[in-house]
Amino acid sequence: MEYTQCWLQYKKISDVNKLDVNVYCGETGRLIDRIYEELALGFWDMYHRKIKISGGAANTGTGNGIVLTVNEKSSLGPEGYSLKSNRGRCIIEADTQVGLLYGTFALLRNLQTGESKAPKPAANFDNWSWEEEKIPSNPLRMLNHWDNMDGSIERGYSGESFFFHDNEIIVNDRTRAYARLMASVGINAVVINNVNVKDAATELITERYYTQLRKLADIFESYAIKLYLSINFASPVELGELDTADPLDERVGKWWREKAEEIWKNLPGLGGFLVKADSEGRPGPYTYGRTHSEGANMLAEAVKPHGGTIIWRCFVYNCRQDWRDKITDRAKAAYDNFKPLDGTFADNVILQIKNGPMDFQVREPVSPLLGGLSKTNMILEFQIAQEYTGQQKHVCFLIPWFKEVLNFDMYCKEKLSTVGDLVSGKTYHQVKCGIAAVANTGNDNNWTGHDLAAANLYGFGRLAFDTGLSSERIAKEWIALTYGFEEKVVKNINKILQMSWPAYEKYTSPLGIGWMVTPHTHYGPSVDGYEYDSWGTYHRADHFGIGVDRSNKGTGYCSQYNPPLDTIYGDKETCPEELLLFFHYVDYSYTLSSGKTLLQHIYDSHFEGVEDVEKMICLWEEIKEAMDMDSYNNVILKLNEQLNSAKEWRDVINSYFYRKTGIPDVKGRNIY
Amino acid sequence: MEYTQCWLQYKKISDVNKLDVNVYCGETGRLIDRIYEELALGFWDMYHRKIKISGGAANTGTGNGIVLTVNEKSSLGPEGYSLKSNRGRCIIEADTQVGLLYGTFALLRNLQTGESKAPKPAANFDNWSWEEEKIPSNPLRMLNHWDNMDGSIERGYSGESFFFHDNEIIVNDRTRAYARLMASVGINAVVINNVNVKDAATELITERYYTQLRKLADIFESYAIKLYLSINFASPVELGELDTADPLDERVGKWWREKAEEIWKNLPGLGGFLVKADSEGRPGPYTYGRTHSEGANMLAEAVKPHGGTIIWRCFVYNCRQDWRDKITDRAKAAYDNFKPLDGTFADNVILQIKNGPMDFQVREPVSPLLGGLSKTNMILEFQIAQEYTGQQKHVCFLIPWFKEVLNFDMYCKEKLSTVGDLVSGKTYHQVKCGIAAVANTGNDNNWTGHDLAAANLYGFGRLAFDTGLSSERIAKEWIALTYGFEEKVVKNINKILQMSWPAYEKYTSPLGIGWMVTPHTHYGPSVDGYEYDSWGTYHRADHFGIGVDRSNKGTGYCSQYNPPLDTIYGDKETCPEELLLFFHYVDYSYTLSSGKTLLQHIYDSHFEGVEDVEKMICLWEEIKEAMDMDSYNNVILKLNEQLNSAKEWRDVINSYFYRKTGIPDVKGRNIY
Repeated sequence: MEYTQCWLQYKKISDVNKLDVNVYCGETGRLIDRIYEELALGFWDMYHRKIKISGGAANTGTGNGIVLTVNEKSSLGPEGYSLKSNRGRCIIEADTQVGLLYGTFALLRNLQTGESKAPKPAANFDNWSWEEEKIPSNPLRMLNHWDNMDGSIERGYSGESFFFHDNEIIVNDRTRAYARLMASVGINAVVINNVNVKDAATELITERYYTQLRKLADIFESYAIKLYLSINFASPVELGELDTADPLDERVGKWWREKAEEIWKNLPGLGGFLVKADSEGRPGPYTYGRTHSEGANMLAEAVKPHGGTIIWRCFVYNCRQDWRDKITDRAKAAYDNFKPLDGTFADNVILQIKNGPMDFQVREPVSPLLGGLSKTNMILEFQIAQEYTGQQKHVCFLIPWFKEVLNFDMYCKEKLSTVGDLVSGKTYHQVKCGIAAVANTGNDNNWTGHDLAAANLYGFGRLAFDTGLSSERIAKEWIALTYGFEEKVVKNINKILQMSWPAYEKYTSPLGIGWMVTPHTHYGPSVDGYEYDSWGTYHRADHFGIGVDRSNKGTGYCSQYNPPLDTIYGDKETCPEELLLFFHYVDYSYTLSSGKTLLQHIYDSHFEGVEDVEKMICLWEEIKEAMDMDSYNNVILKLNEQLNSAKEWRDVINSYFYRKTGIPDVKGRNIY
Repeated sequence: MEYTQCWLQYKKISDVNKLDVNVYCGETGRLIDRIYEELALGFWDMYHRKIKISGGAANTGTGNGIVLTVNEKSSLGPEGYSLKSNRGRCIIEADTQVGLLYGTFALLRNLQTGESKAPKPAANFDNWSWEEEKIPSNPLRMLNHWDNMDGSIERGYSGESFFFHDNEIIVNDRTRAYARLMASVGINAVVINNVNVKDAATELITERYYTQLRKLADIFESYAIKLYLSINFASPVELGELDTADPLDERVGKWWREKAEEIWKNLPGLGGFLVKADSEGRPGPYTYGRTHSEGANMLAEAVKPHGGTIIWRCFVYNCRQDWRDKITDRAKAAYDNFKPLDGTFADNVILQIKNGPMDFQVREPVSPLLGGLSKTNMILEFQIAQEYTGQQKHVCFLIPWFKEVLNFDMYCKEKLSTVGDLVSGKTYHQVKCGIAAVANTGNDNNWTGHDLAAANLYGFGRLAFDTGLSSERIAKEWIALTYGFEEKVVKNINKILQMSWPAYEKYTSPLGIGWMVTPHTHYGPSVDGYEYDSWGTYHRADHFGIGVDRSNKGTGYCSQYNPPLDTIYGDKETCPEELLLFFHYVDYSYTLSSGKTLLQHIYDSHFEGVEDVEKMICLWEEIKEAMDMDSYNNVILKLNEQLNSAKEWRDVINSYFYRKTGIPDVKGRNIY
């Protein structure tokens, strides 16, 4: 086999009872076929029991077994489900077949993890009594793949693309395995191609690719996943027909309307388009003196008759900034560009907003734009590809970080205004909204390069589906599904996962300042690598202190937040310490809440970060006996690389500040 | 026409007299044909006179005209010539036809530049009396092209290769134009492929390429240039036949002997091989626990029966160094690796030694290995591709720098021991020795991207042929040949050229420390770019001072020099200031001979460097009227880029030191 099944490799629970499991279902269709397949596989692998399908008997059946039932009045919504088990029957109820699919995956997951409280060995689950009801927290639960059509993946750390090779679209067993994995955690929308749409990718919306795209979309659809495509805003020009892509030029609108007609004729279930415009060299409406809403709405009008959606990225900033300029602040760009447009976007446009104002650093404040828009559809964008967080060579379990973001209160006037509330539509009642993440997959056997990085893929899906889940719960689910139940294994791996993000933060750039990475590759330290460059990513360290003054005396960025966040961030004394250097220029002698100086904190945290990695290695080594050798080796090799890299970070960062300040470590440790 | 003739685009001097010029010559052959072509072209373009060839009358002719005569007893050596003009006759005499070719180019150059003192308009040069006699300073005058077979050029800044495209060898008009240009300045050996021999380049010594190589070698030969090839030391393995390239394995020796037999059968005039072994990831004898002489001598034995030569690069160092390690010193590597082997190399092996111990920085001390070897053939290696000196976007006339190197006394025991003496064979009487340069050419129309960069190509050849020429003389020759005679033009361009290397030095890294460049690209400033990396290229700047202690209290590098250089360099007070930070860690408060502190010197020189570029722009603008627009624009556009880049250097370097020291500029100028 060329690839694993990740968390869907069901493990034996018991094979004492060999009776078939009755499955009662009155529904038919592709989704139902998927459900039968999954039940058959799950019950066979976990209990060595076959399933026996009794079509049509769903609502009336009385025997033991699984009952799948669609009840359009259940108020579970288009994707919710309820699970009830009682005296030998497990009833999965939903408004739709999609809900049944999610309910089925939930049942199997709960059986596998022990969450279902089903007895083991399970006879016919005779005394089993248990309930669960779930309506997804977010309408859109999306993955963005940054896969290029030549097979490379931008910021990909798990091999090549399994969607594209040599400018052709791949549709094979793995396509299905992928869709199944994604559906099992609730992903319902996938963009398969990189937001930087160039070369052949521009042609994805032409005859050249429709046939293969249709095949791929079909597989996705059979798992309740909608296909989306990233498009090139300059398509009317680059596909060779017009001399402009000006959104207000009637020829351009006409071109897109006809193009949409053609696309949906060939790809009837297509979800819509993701657009990166006017960003990092990509074309956009600014090229023609138009606004982003003029650009997005023109496309929205074209796709509307087909039920299509335009997802418009807000990652727009000046990437040709002069480092000498201390007024311009990249952190302000998304808000400055999009806040004034609130309310001007068509109802089938969604703005996609990165979690922070910069770019997926290990620590950033939450993007103020999330708290600034009230009349616009929004999607929150995370990155599970660990571009700035160890590139799937380091363990960095991101779910605790995502939880912090989702739980963060933006202090909008409305009652419910955490980020989770805002992007799920709870606050302003948008229907088109949700969460997206830049995927961390590739064609490596294990999908994510680092085995433990699969926890981020799994966790993102679960969290998007059920924002209320704790990071601990998600971790333990994933560990049990992946490595099994053994207590020590679950405990140690959970410890590793939970300590990994804080460790990464400790040994890399301090207190929210970010960007001390090797330019371009973004792996490993280079403190001044971006300091004198044009990307708007500066730390401003000098002999006396470090940090960017984003208070009202500085760039004024803090005032983009609703009160009282603006004043909390705007004052060094109230600013959360983990973001201190993001918001303030601070002297090295400044005393932190720990009683340490800023400089000593930098030294200490960098030594601690490396010690944390050493602890992770011990925790992994302790469970060696309980692991198969491939699993053990995959992670231990990467942990060793992580340790070397963490030491490099520690020594470079500490030496940098030591050489800049001339002040030694109070503990006299080795700094170079 | 797709390319210019550079300095061989003869310009009209006079067309008053239209009589033919008699050419008397008793010789025949391809070289003689080239001579006739050149005389015909030169006299037609300069004087609108045809030539009339009177074969066989060379020694006895009495009429006016050019007399070409081979006199094997003239003691001008295999490549020397004499020119004598007297009462209407100009006699070019040489031991060989090669000497006649060089004499012909000299005559035409001297006529074009006015050096010949020939009257203009020239009737039959009746009253012309003038003499010149030249024997080349160096037996080998070589260009190393770093051209890859896919057409790219490593460190190439003038377009793609004109030798290779898409893994094929190009032989066309431009091949001939290239050979003619090179012969005109005395180049007699050319390596066409990159020293990093990979992929298809490994196969240059197989049937796949012999036919084309033969055509190319033929063209070279007709201009007295020998073809050399860079080879892959691991060829016996990579060409698929052996499992080792161990030089002491008899199968390997046999493989190479048979291979050499095959190669010379196909390429009878081949000069030999250039080898980069055990360097920056290339394979070599160290792989097998053998010495460099064992590696080189094995190859030397194989090529000896065919008159072949092995040129062995001494650029061997540890490129996986730990930046924390302050004992290991890359500067010591060439001497440490090769000095102990002095006297062990076969007589057809030549060691090729870079001018400095590091890698073509704008300022380095002279490589101590040049003063350390007395029983080994040596070639000095310069780089005219401006990898670290502005990449042919900045004017940086390197001839003054090369002159400094060549005139530098290494204080060997023998009387004549400047670098020029050592590499020309004057000191130790080697026959196989000379000077090589990494070429700066590509398939741009003007060959060198920046028009003024052609002065380095021209100048290198002239200097290798006649080391005694002054940089001023070379510059003025090149200007007159390229832009004509107008006094202001010659004066201003000469000023630009002469001030360019010092200017580049001023606005880049200070006082010999080097390496403050953007990693990999080597263009633009990145002060810490290589500071925490593995390349052995550190400046060790901290809050108190900067520099590498290479005295005997530090790495001990200075002791690789002969007395008294070792003690001169080893002491901060006697060390030449331009190399102060190369040899010593110095406090910023240290007072230089100017009375300024080190820090203030850094600030001042960086402001001055930018002012120098502004002056160059004024000097160029002053001669706008005298230039054709293409020539004017080529340079002015690049000068503007240079000014921007110089400002970037100034501001980054000054800000870096200001931020590190906290000490402001005494003149209060803008530092960020």
